[in-house]
Amino acid sequence: MGELSHLNAAGEVHMVDISNRLSSCRTATAEGFIGMAPELVELVIAGKTKKGDVLAVARVAAIQAAKRTWELIPLCHPIALTGIEVAINPAEDGAGLRIEVVASCTGTTGVEMEALTAVQVGLLTLYDMVKALDPAMTISGVRVLSKEGGRHGAWRHPSLND
Amino acid sequence: MGELSHLNAAGEVHMVDISNRLSSCRTATAEGFIGMAPELVELVIAGKTKKGDVLAVARVAAIQAAKRTWELIPLCHPIALTGIEVAINPAEDGAGLRIEVVASCTGTTGVEMEALTAVQVGLLTLYDMVKALDPAMTISGVRVLSKEGGRHGAWRHPSLND
Amino acid sequence: MGELSHLNAAGEVHMVDISNRLSSCRTATAEGFIGMAPELVELVIAGKTKKGDVLAVARVAAIQAAKRTWELIPLCHPIALTGIEVAINPAEDGAGLRIEVVASCTGTTGVEMEALTAVQVGLLTLYDMVKALDPAMTISGVRVLSKEGGRHGAWRHPSLND
Amino acid sequence: MGELSHLNAAGEVHMVDISNRLSSCRTATAEGFIGMAPELVELVIAGKTKKGDVLAVARVAAIQAAKRTWELIPLCHPIALTGIEVAINPAEDGAGLRIEVVASCTGTTGVEMEALTAVQVGLLTLYDMVKALDPAMTISGVRVLSKEGGRHGAWRHPSLND
Amino acid sequence: MGELSHLNAAGEVHMVDISNRLSSCRTATAEGFIGMAPELVELVIAGKTKKGDVLAVARVAAIQAAKRTWELIPLCHPIALTGIEVAINPAEDGAGLRIEVVASCTGTTGVEMEALTAVQVGLLTLYDMVKALDPAMTISGVRVLSKEGGRHGAWRHPSLND
Amino acid sequence: MGELSHLNAAGEVHMVDISNRLSSCRTATAEGFIGMAPELVELVIAGKTKKGDVLAVARVAAIQAAKRTWELIPLCHPIALTGIEVAINPAEDGAGLRIEVVASCTGTTGVEMEALTAVQVGLLTLYDMVKALDPAMTISGVRVLSKEGGRHGAWRHPSLND
Repeated sequence: MGELSHLNAAGEVHMVDISNRLSSCRTATAEGFIGMAPELVELVIAGKTKKGDVLAVARVAAIQAAKRTWELIPLCHPIALTGIEVAINPAEDGAGLRIEVVASCTGTTGVEMEALTAVQVGLLTLYDMVKALDPAMTISGVRVLSKEGGRHGAWRHPSLND
Repeated sequence: MGELSHLNAAGEVHMVDISNRLSSCRTATAEGFIGMAPELVELVIAGKTKKGDVLAVARVAAIQAAKRTWELIPLCHPIALTGIEVAINPAEDGAGLRIEVVASCTGTTGVEMEALTAVQVGLLTLYDMVKALDPAMTISGVRVLSKEGGRHGAWRHPSLND
Repeated sequence: MGELSHLNAAGEVHMVDISNRLSSCRTATAEGFIGMAPELVELVIAGKTKKGDVLAVARVAAIQAAKRTWELIPLCHPIALTGIEVAINPAEDGAGLRIEVVASCTGTTGVEMEALTAVQVGLLTLYDMVKALDPAMTISGVRVLSKEGGRHGAWRHPSLND
Repeated sequence: MGELSHLNAAGEVHMVDISNRLSSCRTATAEGFIGMAPELVELVIAGKTKKGDVLAVARVAAIQAAKRTWELIPLCHPIALTGIEVAINPAEDGAGLRIEVVASCTGTTGVEMEALTAVQVGLLTLYDMVKALDPAMTISGVRVLSKEGGRHGAWRHPSLND
Repeated sequence: MGELSHLNAAGEVHMVDISNRLSSCRTATAEGFIGMAPELVELVIAGKTKKGDVLAVARVAAIQAAKRTWELIPLCHPIALTGIEVAINPAEDGAGLRIEVVASCTGTTGVEMEALTAVQVGLLTLYDMVKALDPAMTISGVRVLSKEGGRHGAWRHPSLND
Repeated sequence: MGELSHLNAAGEVHMVDISNRLSSCRTATAEGFIGMAPELVELVIAGKTKKGDVLAVARVAAIQAAKRTWELIPLCHPIALTGIEVAINPAEDGAGLRIEVVASCTGTTGVEMEALTAVQVGLLTLYDMVKALDPAMTISGVRVLSKEGGRHGAWRHPSLND
């Protein structure tokens, strides 16, 4: 098993030096879920046509959080994101909502933390807006689905490779 | 089923007015998990005695994120947290880490969003520090366990009431 | 004519001490306009039913900016806003959009800067989303309409008192 | 009439992908006004020689806000500004102050939002420092005067082209 | 010798719970120095009458940093400062500048970190503006001079008690 | 003697335009001290093996502050740091702690302000965590040790050149 990249030989944290890496186009996709009763899912999704704001607020929160990832995650490098897409849809089984985020940048480090942060804050924002109706909702399945670009090339979550 | 509290009659978001609520001591407890191979759990936890920094970084990130919850979640009120405790331990089955956060404040609105935000950012920080060894880790089980204080009194997650 | 309150006797800025003022409920209302062709107004407002997101994004941006007023305006005190309402509607003459914001807090200083900041950032956000279609739009008429609470009691903009 | 660039086909906001645009030197100039009695203008401008701080505070606030535009305007890309100039002078008719901001960067997206944000926050800061003497002041005429660089080349506000 | 207050029994950081402390008026005064050649001191101080901006920029930076102390120092509680005074003057020996900051709030925790943070960022800002002329300047003597209010009552730096 | 680079001909601050400078790898090293009784030094350093968190918290705070330097120092340009190393050790005489920070980036402006800001906030964080045991601690000797890269090439603090 390898070593933790954010620790130096003495076990102390540092922000890994990326000065000498080549810049390239990078993309990362992440997803996450929040479970809720199907009636609640309907109430939120209904906003898409009738009420407008609920999903938009979560999308905006996710986009803004992605841009501030380096302020939230101590050892993340500052990154100038070039694009963020946030999709929110009912989960396949209808018992919750699924967020999928695609983040992209041109730079020397990956953007999976930005995609994950957008997912997490988007889910928190949904929780916040629905919690008065059901405070017991649970967030789950937050993970990176795929990455492209950079030193290591394309990567897909092992569960998707079958 | 009720209405979404953050929407006015026209379906537009607003930040709910809490001027007239009584101030009281409030506490919220939240938890969350990140799955990883037992060897990785050992590597991270080992830091507790030998390397020091890994868990401390996640704790600091969680504490700082809790304080900035109102910047991240659009409709959250600014809150002056009076205390935050972050505990990180191996999950019961040894295949991951569990974060538990207790947030407290004296004020007119609950602190469960602050506790949840701390959990989410703590988990993201752990993911960030371990991802070079396993990018497929999944975050799950993020939820509020209990709340105390405020208009509605004590609340426990239904799954804990048996 | 009086003196500038943010300057001390030597003409140096300071953040005025408000420790000894009484806390009270305060409200401020502000408004502002962005001019655009009636067809553009229709395109944006249409979002209300069909597209949802345009006005919601501006509302969220206004709410979030209000909460961060003290970070933006150097001599503003940190304030814990208790409520923010943002309304966006076509201007009376149909040639633009009007934002009206009501901000409220319980504290020792007024909230008119918070209401104005929300108006300004809401208008900037509308400009940003429509600028590809008309970069020549102009923002105007940004002012405080009324204030309530605090040492000086209620105030209305002189132009409204007739 | 075109489409709103920040909405995808479903009418949902996203942060437009600019990965494939060419980087170039870009500049944008914006202006704005705050109306006040000529005696107030004198009082503020007098600071230039005698009191120093008033205009400096507004300039600093404008510069700092320009750097944080991407945090305030939800769909703005993070930009590393390379220069900001802020000029504050009496309006031509003597009944107010005029701010002009020139923002510049080397990148793949324009800087007019940064110039406008600087103007808006500079004006808000002037309002804040003078409001004790006249809370009825109105902000107006906030607009982009010109842009240079980028895909579309130079642009001047139509009203200047005569 | 006592224990470190920010560590729990397991040696893990937490943000100390201050929910049960009594609220009171608190003040803290801190100072700090930056050494520079007497000619440089003159150049900077000259700004007071002729150029205006240099000292004003440092004062504004100090005030703004004080308000954001809780974002910078991980275990500091969020505090709503009620007043900040920043004085910048030549050091007694003429070979540098001295900053003195008085911070005040009404609350349950002290404000010495806010006063110190203002001093530190004020000094950094002076360094930044003068560094082209002398990059070898050194910052020193940053300390708390006195505190008033709170559980422990008034405190003065031992060196001042003779 | 030269002129202050952040002032234009009228003595007004601006953010110096760096659009036309060549991008290069840049590094800066800075240091600073906080004095404390040798027993306190032992208590803090002991954390390295037994308690873990104290030094880690200061390191994280220093790293995060470095990334936000441009928000704190009004005329600093936004910089995307590529690496930060923070070392905390007992001072040579045993009566305090010494922080040394190396900051690096690829860009058109130096990173000494980032290194200094990390040192200052790291020292403030140490003060915060130890202040309950000794509020009289003094911070001193904060300076840039060396710079590499950029228009002016390598620079070492004059006191190191003997």
